[in-house]
Amino acid sequence: MISCIIKNSMQKNIVLVEGAGFCFGVKRAIDIAFDVARNYKEGVFTLGPIIHNPHVVEKLKELGVYPLEELSKEKSIKTLIIRAHGIPKEKFNEIKQKDMEIIDATCPFVKRAQSLAEKLATEGYQVVIIGDREHPEVQGIFSYAGPDAIVINSSEIPILNKKIGIIQQTTQPLTKVKEIMNELINSRNEFEEIRIFNTLCNFTSKRLQATEKVARNVDLMIVVGGKNSANTTQLARLCKNMGVKTYHIENAQEINKEWIECITTIGITAGASTPQWIIDEVIDKIKEFIN
Amino acid sequence: MISCIIKNSMQKNIVLVEGAGFCFGVKRAIDIAFDVARNYKEGVFTLGPIIHNPHVVEKLKELGVYPLEELSKEKSIKTLIIRAHGIPKEKFNEIKQKDMEIIDATCPFVKRAQSLAEKLATEGYQVVIIGDREHPEVQGIFSYAGPDAIVINSSEIPILNKKIGIIQQTTQPLTKVKEIMNELINSRNEFEEIRIFNTLCNFTSKRLQATEKVARNVDLMIVVGGKNSANTTQLARLCKNMGVKTYHIENAQEINKEWIECITTIGITAGASTPQWIIDEVIDKIKEFIN
Repeated sequence: MISCIIKNSMQKNIVLVEGAGFCFGVKRAIDIAFDVARNYKEGVFTLGPIIHNPHVVEKLKELGVYPLEELSKEKSIKTLIIRAHGIPKEKFNEIKQKDMEIIDATCPFVKRAQSLAEKLATEGYQVVIIGDREHPEVQGIFSYAGPDAIVINSSEIPILNKKIGIIQQTTQPLTKVKEIMNELINSRNEFEEIRIFNTLCNFTSKRLQATEKVARNVDLMIVVGGKNSANTTQLARLCKNMGVKTYHIENAQEINKEWIECITTIGITAGASTPQWIIDEVIDKIKEFIN
Repeated sequence: MISCIIKNSMQKNIVLVEGAGFCFGVKRAIDIAFDVARNYKEGVFTLGPIIHNPHVVEKLKELGVYPLEELSKEKSIKTLIIRAHGIPKEKFNEIKQKDMEIIDATCPFVKRAQSLAEKLATEGYQVVIIGDREHPEVQGIFSYAGPDAIVINSSEIPILNKKIGIIQQTTQPLTKVKEIMNELINSRNEFEEIRIFNTLCNFTSKRLQATEKVARNVDLMIVVGGKNSANTTQLARLCKNMGVKTYHIENAQEINKEWIECITTIGITAGASTPQWIIDEVIDKIKEFIN
């Protein structure tokens, strides 16, 4: 994992984490949305904001692609884009009944987790999802996971069936997943089968590892991304927990010159929903302050 | 788990562990062997001693059932009994080619472990067997587990494939199995699937738990069973590790009166290959000493 080091005349270094910003699934969903925006005239909507980033959502609005919180009868929806997080099975079936074109931009990693949840439930496993039950991605996966499914987000393990299948929210950190799996195994005295599929997104775990490596060697970490983005918040928490001074910002305007006055190295990382242009603006702003 | 308490006039207690002695699979194999002995005239052999207990083997010899170490051309084998441990697939196929009747007394729990090993290997899993590679049961299971199979007996985890299926030697202690599974999960950074089938024998784990409970409350433990029986040795080790004075004996003749002179409570447990009559003799001998 090589990170890009940008030196400046005052011997301050800016270290940009390799893989910061859009992950594969988000990049794909945004490319699809902009592609649709260019080729379709009207009535194009995304179900929920395409990603957890207000700047991208605004840019799409300018091109005529609007986010919908709920399906409304009033709106004349011709084309509906499903975002990277995916949606619950029931909602998908509801949309399919309507007279509109569906463009499914669900991340292939999330789609795989949904399929595995459905396969495990069909084969008689109680599906255990390691993740955040409030997250739209988890709500989507959960809807495929059968009536016995549960979501676990800590090492407190409830009573489970004898045959369980474990999957994970794609953006969960591997260390946390391992901790929960260990507790789960320790809590089982009479089990029949435990089947664990790795549904973690490789991009997310690599970004976490690369961020950890950079955070270990800098005086300050700037984490760029929507305040409502779970994976950006996770990056900020990781850096704070490592004891490095950390600021979670949404854009370059939030940077305070005082933050970087008395330090030598600044690390920058960004969540999966942060576009490159925002990262570039942050780097430019920091350069402006230290030059 | 209720244990049987035998009180005597001198206020010494003998506590017999519930489930001590023959497990289901061993009892079944011995019943089959004695049944064959009663109904067949000659040429009846068991492949290896029917169980790890010289007394049972002697009794069967008296009835005309002899243990064979290897298949020999000279011997006129008419009927061959496969013992509870099971045998390797290749040996089973070799026997099938010969002109003899096969009576398969493999323990159904071991048979299930063999079938799961074969199923996992066929479905592309690297089979990981938690157990003792020298044990005949493990050698049998291993022969069904495909070319990539490995046996693990400690928390030192080798490099494994991305898709692994885990099974256990039926008599392994659950605590040890959990420790190894935890280490295995912690050692994995990039895995595709981990599928764990519980192939532990319920009888064995219940006997271990019941022995532990009794050992906690007595002054002395007497563990009865063949010195070459892995599960009897395991019971003796458990008691010793708990800090209670422990003797591993094969029969009542080995008991020394001095062992029980200055103590109040004596616990007795026995491995899966120890017949009831030997346990009864041990109890009678102790009663004789303390009366």
